[in-house]
Amino acid sequence: MTRTPPVGIIMGSTSDWPTMKGAADILDTLGVAHEARIVSAHRTPDRLWDYGRGAVERGLKVIIAGAGGAAHLPGMMASKTRLPVIGVPVRTEALSGVDSLYSIVQMPRGFPVATMAIGAAGAVNAGLMAAGILALSDDGLAARLDRWRADLSAGIPEVPE
Amino acid sequence: MTRTPPVGIIMGSTSDWPTMKGAADILDTLGVAHEARIVSAHRTPDRLWDYGRGAVERGLKVIIAGAGGAAHLPGMMASKTRLPVIGVPVRTEALSGVDSLYSIVQMPRGFPVATMAIGAAGAVNAGLMAAGILALSDDGLAARLDRWRADLSAGIPEVPE
Amino acid sequence: MTRTPPVGIIMGSTSDWPTMKGAADILDTLGVAHEARIVSAHRTPDRLWDYGRGAVERGLKVIIAGAGGAAHLPGMMASKTRLPVIGVPVRTEALSGVDSLYSIVQMPRGFPVATMAIGAAGAVNAGLMAAGILALSDDGLAARLDRWRADLSAGIPEVPE
Amino acid sequence: MTRTPPVGIIMGSTSDWPTMKGAADILDTLGVAHEARIVSAHRTPDRLWDYGRGAVERGLKVIIAGAGGAAHLPGMMASKTRLPVIGVPVRTEALSGVDSLYSIVQMPRGFPVATMAIGAAGAVNAGLMAAGILALSDDGLAARLDRWRADLSAGIPEVPE
Amino acid sequence: MTRTPPVGIIMGSTSDWPTMKGAADILDTLGVAHEARIVSAHRTPDRLWDYGRGAVERGLKVIIAGAGGAAHLPGMMASKTRLPVIGVPVRTEALSGVDSLYSIVQMPRGFPVATMAIGAAGAVNAGLMAAGILALSDDGLAARLDRWRADLSAGIPEVPE
Amino acid sequence: MTRTPPVGIIMGSTSDWPTMKGAADILDTLGVAHEARIVSAHRTPDRLWDYGRGAVERGLKVIIAGAGGAAHLPGMMASKTRLPVIGVPVRTEALSGVDSLYSIVQMPRGFPVATMAIGAAGAVNAGLMAAGILALSDDGLAARLDRWRADLSAGIPEVPE
Amino acid sequence: MTRTPPVGIIMGSTSDWPTMKGAADILDTLGVAHEARIVSAHRTPDRLWDYGRGAVERGLKVIIAGAGGAAHLPGMMASKTRLPVIGVPVRTEALSGVDSLYSIVQMPRGFPVATMAIGAAGAVNAGLMAAGILALSDDGLAARLDRWRADLSAGIPEVPE
Amino acid sequence: MTRTPPVGIIMGSTSDWPTMKGAADILDTLGVAHEARIVSAHRTPDRLWDYGRGAVERGLKVIIAGAGGAAHLPGMMASKTRLPVIGVPVRTEALSGVDSLYSIVQMPRGFPVATMAIGAAGAVNAGLMAAGILALSDDGLAARLDRWRADLSAGIPEVPE
Repeated sequence: MTRTPPVGIIMGSTSDWPTMKGAADILDTLGVAHEARIVSAHRTPDRLWDYGRGAVERGLKVIIAGAGGAAHLPGMMASKTRLPVIGVPVRTEALSGVDSLYSIVQMPRGFPVATMAIGAAGAVNAGLMAAGILALSDDGLAARLDRWRADLSAGIPEVPE
Repeated sequence: MTRTPPVGIIMGSTSDWPTMKGAADILDTLGVAHEARIVSAHRTPDRLWDYGRGAVERGLKVIIAGAGGAAHLPGMMASKTRLPVIGVPVRTEALSGVDSLYSIVQMPRGFPVATMAIGAAGAVNAGLMAAGILALSDDGLAARLDRWRADLSAGIPEVPE
Repeated sequence: MTRTPPVGIIMGSTSDWPTMKGAADILDTLGVAHEARIVSAHRTPDRLWDYGRGAVERGLKVIIAGAGGAAHLPGMMASKTRLPVIGVPVRTEALSGVDSLYSIVQMPRGFPVATMAIGAAGAVNAGLMAAGILALSDDGLAARLDRWRADLSAGIPEVPE
Repeated sequence: MTRTPPVGIIMGSTSDWPTMKGAADILDTLGVAHEARIVSAHRTPDRLWDYGRGAVERGLKVIIAGAGGAAHLPGMMASKTRLPVIGVPVRTEALSGVDSLYSIVQMPRGFPVATMAIGAAGAVNAGLMAAGILALSDDGLAARLDRWRADLSAGIPEVPE
Repeated sequence: MTRTPPVGIIMGSTSDWPTMKGAADILDTLGVAHEARIVSAHRTPDRLWDYGRGAVERGLKVIIAGAGGAAHLPGMMASKTRLPVIGVPVRTEALSGVDSLYSIVQMPRGFPVATMAIGAAGAVNAGLMAAGILALSDDGLAARLDRWRADLSAGIPEVPE
Repeated sequence: MTRTPPVGIIMGSTSDWPTMKGAADILDTLGVAHEARIVSAHRTPDRLWDYGRGAVERGLKVIIAGAGGAAHLPGMMASKTRLPVIGVPVRTEALSGVDSLYSIVQMPRGFPVATMAIGAAGAVNAGLMAAGILALSDDGLAARLDRWRADLSAGIPEVPE
Repeated sequence: MTRTPPVGIIMGSTSDWPTMKGAADILDTLGVAHEARIVSAHRTPDRLWDYGRGAVERGLKVIIAGAGGAAHLPGMMASKTRLPVIGVPVRTEALSGVDSLYSIVQMPRGFPVATMAIGAAGAVNAGLMAAGILALSDDGLAARLDRWRADLSAGIPEVPE
Repeated sequence: MTRTPPVGIIMGSTSDWPTMKGAADILDTLGVAHEARIVSAHRTPDRLWDYGRGAVERGLKVIIAGAGGAAHLPGMMASKTRLPVIGVPVRTEALSGVDSLYSIVQMPRGFPVATMAIGAAGAVNAGLMAAGILALSDDGLAARLDRWRADLSAGIPEVPE
């Protein structure tokens, strides 16, 4: 197997990828290596177990987990590894992602999930949060993140168009 | 170990027991053997794995799972066994159990959880649902359940007191 | 009349059928016979009465009831028979099915309804829950259900596409 | 049996009486005869059937129905009689009566329930609504209702105390 | 002016008419005369005052009021007349009519509004509720309403199509 | 009658005074004269009419209106006067003031209500908003408001105690 | 720089302009000068600082701030200036603007934001509220505002079309 | 001043300290140095500016920010520094912390806040998340965190007591 990247992006289903790709793209922009995997809490629980149990040893540093509805993936991953887990509530048809949000954020004492906004903005922010964590021990990344943030601000026009 | 009873009542924490005891009590009333176990999705995930994987072989028929907040226990159990899983959303301080309800009921295609009302009434009804399922192949239990239901109705006064 | 199948799928209106057909389809897939009936709690209350009162004698084992809005059908059916009743909250225009969910799940002590997720996923899961209940005394069905679950998991790709 | 009063106040349980008594009291104040009955949609469905089916013949004019949680009583009564049914959502522990409100107000086309505010104010207003309906053909009651409304307004101080 | 019909249908804006027309149509079907008026609580408060104050004298029996958002029309009308006021919460863009529902149903002690379901079904039911009230002293209308209800039930097929 | 103060504080009931007194107190602190009146939208609609219609002529500058539940007072006042109306959603038992908030804030185009936070903080802020408006043409008040704000900030300790 | 107008309209992003333009348009209609600026609480916090700190000296009288999601712009502006700040909750995809509403209206004691309805109606009303405030010391504007309000009412038809 | 610890715990008011102390306590347990400061987004915005701007240089690694209601502190801090910001929604009286949750979690693209559960469990988890981040480059802390997690699991009894 190739060298493990620092960030693992996992999601319950290929249908979550259009949302979660936002995390991959911003990590690409910031030059942070990452892997993307389908890990379904309910359909492939053993894959979740293996991914979580082996995460530290494989060299992963941060896990981004997106899920919708009864969104158990981020919280179960937080149960299996002490690595920081960032959760992205994917929008749902009936409840707009409020179900996803509550299932991810309301974790009990002992197992934090760093929850982001519902949907696409949340996925991008998950990538940025992962970068901010890795930047604590990577000065080059810190500089790239600072520059990205400065560019974001610099691009704001003075008046609406 | 003693013979496995048909109903397993599991919950994430001893603090759920005052709620979940309602399921145990109604099963006692109806003469249905049961066991009660602490199985935390997040704190004891391997215990959850073992409980779910061994449920059919041990002879369990129905599993009642109570949990609150980001309530992953019922859904994860439904992922590990084909036995009917009945979920009880335990009330929570900030969100009154709406978080528990959404986390339990909004399961994806493939993994049903038979969700009950939030709190104490839901726990009693979980016991009754388990009894109703077992009564399909137990005429004695069916008769006892019919009688319990008839008594419930017979006890209703005509006018408020 | 032909022999009664073990599962009755009832709904308040033909407009619920696109949702509820998901339950019928998965039961077909698993080889479980079923009937589908329009039984409206409000428009045909006597039909509901008759269906509920005759359910055990006719040989039904499980009833799946779908309804939307002030969704009284599942709960009223649970009042008329001790057979397990599985409720599917159908989505609604104004409240997205939260009204259906609350009307179905918040049943009082004595009358459980096994509530599923809102909408299409909930209907499929209602079929799976019915199959899981029947599989307790049908080894062939248990094997087919185990295989369906295994296939579901086996079909999950490793990476998003 | 004594002569049927024009207003029937029904509720699912004696525990609803402290709320529903507000309807009885205001009807007493306005000199409108009424009866109060326990009619549980789930525990005494046949009593509900009989009450609804016989309502017109017995001479009832308006039915006030209070219920909480999956509050099926008002809507099922509306299904059984063309008499105006006024619904009072009783407060609930977990969901504060939002479940009761949705279960009562979101009735499908064909079966209106005149829904009041959640809790005690709703019960009083149910009595006033019944009186307003009966006053359409009872000039004495109309005058008493006008006076009650005038007194209510007259009692409002100019400045807070 | 022509003779006052028994039912007044009022709404805050012409944009509410597509919803409220459902009330007019069912009243036409049942042979109940009615008038439709634009009466905006905020834009034409004096028109609301006049409509409410003159309602009894003009001979109106029931007022149906539809409104959306901060829906003050039904409640303010209930403040100005003792006639039964039926409120229809019109759907809104941002909050789907939950704002309309709360603004209409949560009336304080003294001023009931008979609240219907959100949107189109609610408007039809408002017409039926008005008919049910008028039928208390109109045997012909009672018979027509009974027949309409019987036809509604008779038209329900046995199986979904 | 004494000279009209610039701020009128109105509320639907004496029971709102414990909340609304917060507005009066902060205005006292800032040296802004005010009057407090009970004006109920439903119980004293004509008083509301008179208060609104005479507000400009009497010399009022800003009106603070507190109400709970189906809170029509602020919006109806905004319909009757072009003076700025500040709305305070009073907490309610069943819905915690979400009903009050929606009834006050969701005003239609044409009739703004400057809505504050639910409850006590909202009442204080209503007083501050009124002061901020009056300070636009009162330099002394502007200075006092600046000082109050500076003191508020100066009083914040560096570390929690 | 040109002379400062009395009203500043600020928003977090050009994407808010279609909503916020409603405020600009009504101010144009009423003859109130205004400026529109992009001021993002998160992307250009220093611009927010400068805008708020210089607002009084520059001669601004009222600030209208629109924002969506975790909508911090109105509240942070209220922290930096004693000028009246009017907040417009912009609609959001997942939560329809309820997130925006709560983030804007639930301000703590000391920092009021005059919150308007969610979306387009709220933006128009923000302009009207600003005009109402300025009209307190501008008789010409008061007359124009009175006329606009009278025209709005005069344009309401008697019957729906 | 003493050496800067890796974790800064900030909150808007001393009244948040009973909640936020949970973060401090778990960090003490895990041997992670930290500071606690009152930094109010609205009352001391310049203190927030200074804290955020100087955070990297001072040597802070992670910032935990707790706030309630229109909870702007975590998001504004995320705007001022690239350090990971962990947000704790403090419970509120009227809305139970749903307002706090939405204000913290629904951040726009560019400025992630790692949001925790509402209230006390969220504060403890914020401390654990901070520890998990720091453990990425501190093997001793990683070991202590692993042990704490193992002890948490080991302490779970088999049966409810």
